[in-house]
Amino acid sequence: MSGHVYIIGLGPGEQNLQTIEVEALLPTLTDIIGYGPYVNRVQVPAHILKHISDNREELDRARHALLLAQQGQRVGVVSSGDAGVFAMASAVFEAIEHGDPSFKDIEVTVLPGISAMFAAASRLGAPLGHDFCAISLSDNLKPWEIILKRLRLAAQADFVIALYNAVSKARPWQLDTALDLLREELPLDIPVAFCQAISRDNEHIELTNLKEASASMGNMQTLVLIGSRYSKLIQTNQKIWFYTPRSIQS
Amino acid sequence: MSGHVYIIGLGPGEQNLQTIEVEALLPTLTDIIGYGPYVNRVQVPAHILKHISDNREELDRARHALLLAQQGQRVGVVSSGDAGVFAMASAVFEAIEHGDPSFKDIEVTVLPGISAMFAAASRLGAPLGHDFCAISLSDNLKPWEIILKRLRLAAQADFVIALYNAVSKARPWQLDTALDLLREELPLDIPVAFCQAISRDNEHIELTNLKEASASMGNMQTLVLIGSRYSKLIQTNQKIWFYTPRSIQS
Repeated sequence: MSGHVYIIGLGPGEQNLQTIEVEALLPTLTDIIGYGPYVNRVQVPAHILKHISDNREELDRARHALLLAQQGQRVGVVSSGDAGVFAMASAVFEAIEHGDPSFKDIEVTVLPGISAMFAAASRLGAPLGHDFCAISLSDNLKPWEIILKRLRLAAQADFVIALYNAVSKARPWQLDTALDLLREELPLDIPVAFCQAISRDNEHIELTNLKEASASMGNMQTLVLIGSRYSKLIQTNQKIWFYTPRSIQS
Repeated sequence: MSGHVYIIGLGPGEQNLQTIEVEALLPTLTDIIGYGPYVNRVQVPAHILKHISDNREELDRARHALLLAQQGQRVGVVSSGDAGVFAMASAVFEAIEHGDPSFKDIEVTVLPGISAMFAAASRLGAPLGHDFCAISLSDNLKPWEIILKRLRLAAQADFVIALYNAVSKARPWQLDTALDLLREELPLDIPVAFCQAISRDNEHIELTNLKEASASMGNMQTLVLIGSRYSKLIQTNQKIWFYTPRSIQS
């Protein structure tokens, strides 16, 4: 008897930002696996087993899920945001590719979620209204030189840039180095937003510009959104909105 | 009395892929505005007025929504996918910025949705598992030279590339020109997916590679996902999965 691995995007935090599909699936699982804070966010009946692992052990966690599915379990591998964006979906497919050949018999379904960048964008206005990119700033999984090269090309392309894993205690210098590089390529007055824990209790947004932006404005829960030279701030009675127009005049 | 404009991402099609938040909000509105196929997708009580407009009239539609809100209405402006990605959110903020000063008195809320690229990615596996970008191929709103420049820089940065508005009857040559440019920069065997109408009745995915990819494989409902040189295909008993590993070895 073969089980099933569901790779699940929980959205950014608030249960309201889950999809109806995810909400309906969760209570039908036998096991839920993930990083502690994400697993703990899921409210399901007590008979569903929760397996909590450390944040760095993604590949082990993926293998664990596949082994449980081999025993016939319906396993949910949960990520915050969308599971396909710097999260567990790739880890599961890596584990299938390089693991026991029998892993290829296991059924897999991926359920999308609201990623951190779209949740942050909805709070800010419409910063991602034109061409954009997402870059993980962590050099745990790729060389720092590649990150710098990509940042420079992204700035030259005038993409709005969403930085994931932007601030870490283990590498506090990285974001400031990245911002210095962007200051070489882009106007200093473009908007930059530090978006912490969107839709969670400690949600906090700090709006600044490229000149003033500093790693001290963020922490491990912060997504950094850097506008393009076309992005704008507009003040209404409600708040300051950050948006990128749809059009570029030639 | 002042109303409220809600900018709503409906997700890619299937109601299951809406957020709980959007599902709860829709029946509380007085008016729903949008492009016909999106408005018609929304199932709400008959007393809620539906205003349908042509796909090209985004700014007019945004103004219409703001005028209704000024009269005290609770207006939902609906887009497919996420409203912030090549959709109505930017149009609303443009209309606020350049319109009647009293538009700045209107309350606005943006509700994120599952964008087409994440819905497509979930069907394919995890193509967006590493750094990626989204580019609209339409030159209605920006010069074609900027599109080509961005494509080349994105390829040099080795982003996975999601192409929105990739195929249009009005500009059938554009996607083939874009693919020719990418063939100059990238290995010809990288995976390319043509993802049509994900989660709708006519959902269809065609998986090919950069060498074989051709505009004839898509239509106006197609999102094109182009892998990076690190992306892979793996065959399981279930299907062929397209994923991009989390790590790049130095």
